[in-house]
Amino acid sequence: MTFRASVLTLYPEMFPGPLGLSLAGRGLSEGAWSLEMVQIRDFALDKHRSVDDTPAGGGAGMVMRADVLARAVDHGSPAGDPRPRLLMSPRGKPLTQARVRELAAGPGAVILCGRFEGIDQRLIESRGFEEISVGDYILSGGEPAAIVLLDAIVRLLPGVMGNAQSGEEESFEHGLLEHPHYTRPQEFEGMPIPDVLTSGNHAKISAWRREQAERLTRERRPDLLSGRTQPVTK
Amino acid sequence: MTFRASVLTLYPEMFPGPLGLSLAGRGLSEGAWSLEMVQIRDFALDKHRSVDDTPAGGGAGMVMRADVLARAVDHGSPAGDPRPRLLMSPRGKPLTQARVRELAAGPGAVILCGRFEGIDQRLIESRGFEEISVGDYILSGGEPAAIVLLDAIVRLLPGVMGNAQSGEEESFEHGLLEHPHYTRPQEFEGMPIPDVLTSGNHAKISAWRREQAERLTRERRPDLLSGRTQPVTK
Repeated sequence: MTFRASVLTLYPEMFPGPLGLSLAGRGLSEGAWSLEMVQIRDFALDKHRSVDDTPAGGGAGMVMRADVLARAVDHGSPAGDPRPRLLMSPRGKPLTQARVRELAAGPGAVILCGRFEGIDQRLIESRGFEEISVGDYILSGGEPAAIVLLDAIVRLLPGVMGNAQSGEEESFEHGLLEHPHYTRPQEFEGMPIPDVLTSGNHAKISAWRREQAERLTRERRPDLLSGRTQPVTK
Repeated sequence: MTFRASVLTLYPEMFPGPLGLSLAGRGLSEGAWSLEMVQIRDFALDKHRSVDDTPAGGGAGMVMRADVLARAVDHGSPAGDPRPRLLMSPRGKPLTQARVRELAAGPGAVILCGRFEGIDQRLIESRGFEEISVGDYILSGGEPAAIVLLDAIVRLLPGVMGNAQSGEEESFEHGLLEHPHYTRPQEFEGMPIPDVLTSGNHAKISAWRREQAERLTRERRPDLLSGRTQPVTK
C-alpha cells in the first residue's frame, strides 16, 4: 500500500525539494509513497486569483479565505477521503514521534500549508483539519514544516530505510536522548574513544550508554523525564 | 551586513530547495543572506571517500567520523570564525523563537547536518558545536531541520519580510498561541464571522482575541502557560 500525500500550497515548486533525494526520493520513485501537489491559487474565485483578504476585526497581515481553500481541499481531498487533514501551524499540537508513527501506519495525509497571517477558522472547522506544529518557532509558511513532517513519516514506510533502521529512534521513543557515539579512529586529536566502548564487555557498554543517555536527558531535557510513566532509576 | 550561512552536508543538492523561493529566495538573490554549501564527502581521507564507520562498542547504524568532519568544518569555518556552529540533532536543545531571533541578529551560522546513526562525539566537543533540535521526532538527516532553521532565521533579517511583519510572531513570543482568524466572505457555508469582529469596537475585539488566545493555549499548550513569569488573568 502506498502512502498518499497531498500538499495544498501556494508554492508547489518547493516540493518534493529535499524529499526528492536520498531515502525519501528513492521511496518516491519506487512507489513507497506518492506526492500530489495542489496549487491553492488555481481555486481562486476572481480574475485576480486572490487567495487572501484583510482580517475581520483589523490587524496586520492577510488571512487565507475559507471559500477559496474549501474548493482546493474538496478537489485534493473529496468527501470520504480516509486520510487525515493536517494544517501546519505554530498554533497546533506539537508533533511527536508517536504521532509520526501513527500517520506512517495510515493511508496518507492531506497537508495544508498556511501562509500570511493565518487561515480562516471556518475552513479549519468545516473541513476537519488537525493543526500540527513542528516546533515553537515561526516559519515563513507551512511548506518547510510539511517537508519536515513528510520526511519523518516517509523514513518509517516499509522499504524506505531498509536495514538502516535506527537505534536512535527507539532510544528517543523510550523518552531518553541518545548516548554519545564514537567510531574510528581510536584517537582523534589526542582524544581516545572511551575505554569502556572498546572493552568488549557488552553489559558494561550497555550500562554506560544508558547512564550517558540519562545524564544527557537530565541536563538538556528534564521535561522528557518528568513526563515518563516509569521513574528513572540509576 | 549579510547573514552568512554555511551548511555542511552529504546532500548539498537539497539546498537552497524551498529556501530558493518566496521570501527566503528573494532575500538570497538580493543579498540579505548568503548560503555556502560544503560537501562533507570532499574531505574524506581514503579513495572510497568514506565518511562513516561502525559504532565503537557495537550497535546498529554507522557513525560519522570525527577526522573527516573536522577537515570539512575547518574548511567551512576556519579558526576565528565568529559564527556559531550548530549541529542539527534530536538530542539538541529545542529550538525556540527567542533563539531564532538571537541567531538572526548575529553574523550567520555554520550548520552541520548529521546523517546515519550520529556524529562522533569528539568532533562535537573539539569544534564547539551546539546541538539544536527542531522537534521531538526523528528525521532522515539534519537537512530538513536545517531548512526549517534557516527559514525561521531568514524571515527576520532586515529587508526580507518588508511590511508583511507578522503579529503571529509577537503573540507567540508572549507565550500564547494565536487567536482564530476570519476574513471575507461574511458568511461561509452558513457560518458567519463572529459578531464582535465586525462590531467596530476595538476594545471588545482586542479582549475577544486575548480571551481566545488564552483559551487555545490552555487547551492545547498548558506547558506554555506554566512557563510564563506572569500569571495569566482572565
